Amino acid sequence: MSNKSTRCSACKYLRRKCSEDCILAPHFPATDPERFVHVHKIFGAGNVSRMLQKLPYNEREVAANSISYEAYLRVQDPVYGIAGTITNLQEEIHRKQQELVRIKAEIAIYTAGNL
Amino acid sequence: MSNKSTRCSACKYLRRKCSEDCILAPHFPATDPERFVHVHKIFGAGNVSRMLQKLPYNEREVAANSISYEAYLRVQDPVYGIAGTITNLQEEIHRKQQELVRIKAEIAIYTAGNL
Repeated sequence: MSNKSTRCSACKYLRRKCSEDCILAPHFPATDPERFVHVHKIFGAGNVSRMLQKLPYNEREVAANSISYEAYLRVQDPVYGIAGTITNLQEEIHRKQQELVRIKAEIAIYTAGNL
Repeated sequence: MSNKSTRCSACKYLRRKCSEDCILAPHFPATDPERFVHVHKIFGAGNVSRMLQKLPYNEREVAANSISYEAYLRVQDPVYGIAGTITNLQEEIHRKQQELVRIKAEIAIYTAGNL
């Protein structure tokens, strides 16, 4: 990642050289510039670099993905961010739970009627 | 919020004066210092201030809460952060869905047997 044409999207966005040991390069390739733009806007390049630096290498890609996902959703929804997704999932669980309760109650009534 | 004793937790942590129009003060009270520590560690004070600044006043508390929740979970789980919660909820939905499918299949078999 030493010359301009192979800079990662983070270094390209930040208009800096991309060193061979750039911690962001493996997770923010030049082919997906949007990914870093969101992450930089929400977390800042320094914070993300520090977060990745503290992790063992084999966990960094998962962390970069979850950080990017959070950043993307915070850009889409500046008030709730990813927490909006959690609310939606909790509502879906609640609906399915209600459906289970309803079906089980119907079975119980039907079974009692057939005794 | 003009004197030292009434600084918000953000200004106290950042060792700065807390002005009357401090954008963080309404959402990061001195009574809950941990909340800002997490947010600062993950997002940075500047990013959070900017995110809140862009929102109308009545949406800022919800945003501060969701940002604080994200930061707290990222501190607890530096790899998955809040996305770990989403995975857990999706698994719960999948389990409930499977239970629904199983019960409906049993009802269908029972109903067919009684025709």
